[in-house]
Amino acid sequence: MNGQPIDVDDELSARISWSRLIEPGDAVAGELVRTLGAGRALAWARAAATSGDGSRLVTALVDAEPSLEDVRRRLGTAVGRWAGRFVDLEPNRDLERMDHLGGGVLHPGSVGWPTGLDDLGAAAPMCLWVRGRRDVSASLDRSIALVGARASTSYGERVAVDLAAGLAAHSTCVVSGGAYGIDAAAHRGSLAAGGTTVALLAGGVDRAYPVGNAPLLERILEQGGCVLSEVPPGGVPSKGRFLMRNRLIAAVSRATVVVEAAWRSGALSTANHAAALLRPVGAVPGPVTSMASAGCHRLLRDGAAVCVTDAAEVLELAGRAGEDLPPERSADHRDGDDLDWASRRLLDALPSRSSAEPDELARTAGLSVGEVRGALGVLELAGLAHRVGARWTRSAHGGVGRRP
Amino acid sequence: MNGQPIDVDDELSARISWSRLIEPGDAVAGELVRTLGAGRALAWARAAATSGDGSRLVTALVDAEPSLEDVRRRLGTAVGRWAGRFVDLEPNRDLERMDHLGGGVLHPGSVGWPTGLDDLGAAAPMCLWVRGRRDVSASLDRSIALVGARASTSYGERVAVDLAAGLAAHSTCVVSGGAYGIDAAAHRGSLAAGGTTVALLAGGVDRAYPVGNAPLLERILEQGGCVLSEVPPGGVPSKGRFLMRNRLIAAVSRATVVVEAAWRSGALSTANHAAALLRPVGAVPGPVTSMASAGCHRLLRDGAAVCVTDAAEVLELAGRAGEDLPPERSADHRDGDDLDWASRRLLDALPSRSSAEPDELARTAGLSVGEVRGALGVLELAGLAHRVGARWTRSAHGGVGRRP
Repeated sequence: MNGQPIDVDDELSARISWSRLIEPGDAVAGELVRTLGAGRALAWARAAATSGDGSRLVTALVDAEPSLEDVRRRLGTAVGRWAGRFVDLEPNRDLERMDHLGGGVLHPGSVGWPTGLDDLGAAAPMCLWVRGRRDVSASLDRSIALVGARASTSYGERVAVDLAAGLAAHSTCVVSGGAYGIDAAAHRGSLAAGGTTVALLAGGVDRAYPVGNAPLLERILEQGGCVLSEVPPGGVPSKGRFLMRNRLIAAVSRATVVVEAAWRSGALSTANHAAALLRPVGAVPGPVTSMASAGCHRLLRDGAAVCVTDAAEVLELAGRAGEDLPPERSADHRDGDDLDWASRRLLDALPSRSSAEPDELARTAGLSVGEVRGALGVLELAGLAHRVGARWTRSAHGGVGRRP
Repeated sequence: MNGQPIDVDDELSARISWSRLIEPGDAVAGELVRTLGAGRALAWARAAATSGDGSRLVTALVDAEPSLEDVRRRLGTAVGRWAGRFVDLEPNRDLERMDHLGGGVLHPGSVGWPTGLDDLGAAAPMCLWVRGRRDVSASLDRSIALVGARASTSYGERVAVDLAAGLAAHSTCVVSGGAYGIDAAAHRGSLAAGGTTVALLAGGVDRAYPVGNAPLLERILEQGGCVLSEVPPGGVPSKGRFLMRNRLIAAVSRATVVVEAAWRSGALSTANHAAALLRPVGAVPGPVTSMASAGCHRLLRDGAAVCVTDAAEVLELAGRAGEDLPPERSADHRDGDDLDWASRRLLDALPSRSSAEPDELARTAGLSVGEVRGALGVLELAGLAHRVGARWTRSAHGGVGRRP
């Protein structure tokens, strides 16, 4: 909306108000908005919150809208929670503020709305506050969440940087939470490789939290990424908001990878959200002596995550086919790999510093003399054995089995 | 047989001969012995190997013993492989040699025969050559195989020592292959904790292989453990024998744990054997930057192994119940863990350096005023909040949530 006259669409305006009324993940509000539309739902909630007889309004509403039957008993409580916040709803002021920040607001009807959020159902955010590129959905379509502990080790940070850079090299957006530790390393790794990265904050997008990451968040914006939150401008991050924010990280991404997490870490909640949304979950292993990897090992042990060790494996986790598939691991090719069983066994028995006759080789290798004669022919052709009179010896450097 | 007059039982004598005739894992010999008994099988094989018309003898045998139909076509080849080794069969000399070493021979009828070997079917060893304690089966009944790369890192060795010591502390025998690297560390860890450990060698038990581990093997014997092999005294380890030895390590143990293994490592074959025998397989994770852990990560990624990080998890892997179960992980207990949802959310919103009225707290926390009043009571009782006039503040040190 930057540079355009502000013309507040009713639905958007109502969703902005809703995002101020509720705490993230309020599924009762979600059901109400889904049933009545954001504007009607807001008018009803305001009436119920200010009425002296809210429970009568609840009864009347549910009677008229049977789809709300499931939330009937929670509606009264929910109205009580929203009640105190009707005082400072000013959607226009919020939009002006975002406009001033070069940002805007996305809602389920917007171009750029991350469609993955729809999988959250009634717990989906009312709107997303965005700074930076507003057409993020195209990037998020190929995104991976890299998350982890704030209390990270240099090992974990190095792995996060490497993974993020590897993903960026495959045009894959890295999503994280903008926190210290693994989050920051993931954003940095993506930026260093020229990638697009998205930070999903637990507080308002106008507040750099943590303050020390303000320059990092600016770099993200400069490099075509964005900063997102469902909490309106000015909103403070709280423990509950961090946990709810994690469901958004999981929902907007194709897969979630935990790089480092203690036994009890918020990053595990992101993994749990991803699993609940049927998104693939990966965990990076680390030294068993490192407490910062205990949460990752817990996920692996519980079968809740796939072990991932490099960017190619992360891409494979996200189910990306074709050019993104990891190359075959280049194991050292060894002498004898291409040989039949008997020739391999003979090669194993063939002396390299002395020589032996076929009968002797048969006894040593546990092969019949006929098998030995056949296998010697195979090995000779492969440049792995040569004849010295009636005796045979192993050739110093094999032919077919050895790469130049 | 130490100190006793040697009285060679025919079956044992024949099995000793068979162990010289075959290479480890020869299932054709195994079927033959299973059908005819070791003695008759040996007599038949000698006749077939020395006869000018072996194929006629094969036909006659299979016609008489229909259970051998499955190996009919392989019998001729197998006889050809055994043929060269009939020259030096002297079971009595072998027994004397073992007696001289303070060792002996176990066969499927012996007290002390590891019953896990029977799961190998026709590929079970003909006999086991043993130095040290011959009643190993009791120890092996509670044993864990700890295996891994010879090219280990100090991290891997440290973990192997710790795991082995932890297992020894739970009276659990550690089985390994007596090699350098992880194997040696596993044996050492068990010995250091006063445990019983078993080394299963790929060559004869009279040969310390590798030579540098001779003192370690002696320590194993001194401390009540044993050294085992299916290869007769004097036998040289070969690549094929190492791989076949790995099936024995897997078969005698309750579970197999790979501590460190490169992408292509013999230790992975032990894991594969264990899986084929329906024994649990564990893998120890390590830094993704360490090539020595790549094989472990491969097993985890393929779902072929469970992630294990300490001895308690290894014991759990082996399905040991009761006192061996790992203790509940002692995560830091945090303020609010025992509280209901609303009280936790309020605690999160309660200022600790200032104070607030219930209405204000309701708006901040996204709770109704009624919920706030209830939760304040809960928090006050828990020593987590206190009243300052009409306002409330968070208590500096919580009560119930905080452990002394």
